[in-house]
Amino acid sequence: MIIAGIDPGYAISGFGIIDYTGNKFKVLDYGVVTTKSTMPMARRLQILYDSYMELLEMHKPDAVAIEELFFNKNVKTVIAVGQARGVHILAAVNKNIPIFEYTPLQVKQGIVGYGRAQKKQVQEMTKVMLNLNSIPKPDDAADALAIAICHAHSLKFQDSFKL
Amino acid sequence: MIIAGIDPGYAISGFGIIDYTGNKFKVLDYGVVTTKSTMPMARRLQILYDSYMELLEMHKPDAVAIEELFFNKNVKTVIAVGQARGVHILAAVNKNIPIFEYTPLQVKQGIVGYGRAQKKQVQEMTKVMLNLNSIPKPDDAADALAIAICHAHSLKFQDSFKL
Repeated sequence: MIIAGIDPGYAISGFGIIDYTGNKFKVLDYGVVTTKSTMPMARRLQILYDSYMELLEMHKPDAVAIEELFFNKNVKTVIAVGQARGVHILAAVNKNIPIFEYTPLQVKQGIVGYGRAQKKQVQEMTKVMLNLNSIPKPDDAADALAIAICHAHSLKFQDSFKL
Repeated sequence: MIIAGIDPGYAISGFGIIDYTGNKFKVLDYGVVTTKSTMPMARRLQILYDSYMELLEMHKPDAVAIEELFFNKNVKTVIAVGQARGVHILAAVNKNIPIFEYTPLQVKQGIVGYGRAQKKQVQEMTKVMLNLNSIPKPDDAADALAIAICHAHSLKFQDSFKL
């Protein structure tokens, strides 16, 4: 099955598309969608939506796995990331793709095996599991790949959370 | 000009469409879009987006005025309303309609003349300004009409804030 992992954001949004068949992982695509801070927020949301509609159209994933929002103390930031997350989810549902969400804790547990793992450890494990030569860059793309792996693992244990 | 006011939300989202020509207001439509709490959030966002795409297609407003998010202490709520707000904004930008945002304070000042006005006062003024027989129901629709009036007023004073 093909899984799209998404680390949502409005300035930078990471994606990672993997194929998970017979317990084997294969990376199909990864990268980031960025929007400039000089643009009106409405236009930035449109760019994010259009980019994900294209990505999902191209790779036709069977599932989208998206990271739950981190709880920032800055409420303005939470609102802005929430808005961006909304259009990411809308792209998936408008493409009829089931969406699953995972907390950063679940991603760490799913990849490294324990929730207090460091970012670097998660990235190293992601590299090894996906048989890559180096850690994917930037961090947002690596995070998105980790979320996709997390979903693949959760399928085995049937503990995924559909949004 | 035709102005669509929106009081965004995920469980209930108010809208009010007014025509403002030659200093006169005319109500074209108002109401709410509701989504059930039993539905997955992704589906709720889709219903909101589709409903607003239809409403904007039907009334073809020249501008959309949307309320800025209130700052709830519950971060989960802020994220959920943020997500809903994102798809409201996306509907407007995908219809090529300019979007303006106003804080609750600006709406109160724009309608009643001072920012500490009570909800009931704002609703009474909205009723009078729009020449209605009674206060529009439910509150979310009345709020949306007030936001639309606020935008009409701000045009006179050229203090609107484009999103």
